[in-house]
Amino acid sequence: MPFVTIEWFEGRSDAQKAEVARGVTDVLAEVGKMPADQVWIRFVDVPKADWAIGGEIQGPPD
Amino acid sequence: MPFVTIEWFEGRSDAQKAEVARGVTDVLAEVGKMPADQVWIRFVDVPKADWAIGGEIQGPPD
Amino acid sequence: MPFVTIEWFEGRSDAQKAEVARGVTDVLAEVGKMPADQVWIRFVDVPKADWAIGGEIQGPPD
Amino acid sequence: MPFVTIEWFEGRSDAQKAEVARGVTDVLAEVGKMPADQVWIRFVDVPKADWAIGGEIQGPPD
Amino acid sequence: MPFVTIEWFEGRSDAQKAEVARGVTDVLAEVGKMPADQVWIRFVDVPKADWAIGGEIQGPPD
Amino acid sequence: MPFVTIEWFEGRSDAQKAEVARGVTDVLAEVGKMPADQVWIRFVDVPKADWAIGGEIQGPPD
Repeated sequence: MPFVTIEWFEGRSDAQKAEVARGVTDVLAEVGKMPADQVWIRFVDVPKADWAIGGEIQGPPD
Repeated sequence: MPFVTIEWFEGRSDAQKAEVARGVTDVLAEVGKMPADQVWIRFVDVPKADWAIGGEIQGPPD
Repeated sequence: MPFVTIEWFEGRSDAQKAEVARGVTDVLAEVGKMPADQVWIRFVDVPKADWAIGGEIQGPPD
Repeated sequence: MPFVTIEWFEGRSDAQKAEVARGVTDVLAEVGKMPADQVWIRFVDVPKADWAIGGEIQGPPD
Repeated sequence: MPFVTIEWFEGRSDAQKAEVARGVTDVLAEVGKMPADQVWIRFVDVPKADWAIGGEIQGPPD
Repeated sequence: MPFVTIEWFEGRSDAQKAEVARGVTDVLAEVGKMPADQVWIRFVDVPKADWAIGGEIQGPPD
């Protein structure tokens, strides 16, 4: 543990994911006092066509 | 908040998702007494090949 | 299927949950053309102390 | 109920999923004393590029 | 990986959870060809008052 | 969006959650180029009795 799930709009690059993974892991390891290698992160790239806010789908199909 | 996740078999149209998004948001805003724009919904289209009921995968691979 | 997860702030009554469950199930059954008894819904009552928006925890501990 | 979610690296075959679905359902039905047909399982095939351990993305993009 | 989430009605004993954890891990390790110590399982005990099937809440509040 | 779920062992203080919330939000806003107020984070405090690694429950019941 911990297991972190990041659900966001698709479109971020692999470089951005790598940087987020490092940053989030650092925060958890430092503040949570846990070994970094115990931090698992899963990115979920969500099409805007599958995300609604206020009842409105956020984008056209891919 | 709230965050609503709808996991279902893939195959619904974008029009169906839009209608479900509106309907579910209306229900939550009205019954839950919350602003509609605070309702986030995520649709997860699941292939039948990735869903099992009673130990049986529900469909062939795509 | 489908499996619906509703994560929201704790504090809604059982009557509100019952009404939301009926309303959401109706929407899914009608729009999604699926039998109502195939709709599973799980409510997740989240303390405000466990929810952050914009980096700010939304409430004091219970 | 229950609803079981299995998040793992993509790459397992349909035959493996079928065997896991049967095995996990058997365990739950037997130990949990519940009808097998009440066990729903969803497989989530995650690209290694979307999974980080210890701050390191586990694989190149597909 | 993998990360397994088991959402079910509260009420199972710790002995049942332990047995399910061992059984599910065995299945995944054997069929999925992965080291057992890479299998993480999280149990989520859900009150029946928070679970609806067919629009009906499955039990009274605790 | 995004919606971040952090599942970890219970026991962290509210001060630690607040600091993690700020740190994770900063990382996402900066690297992901998104407004901080669009970042929602949910903490899930999991009893060790509900978490298994390698088939072994990680702690006694509360």
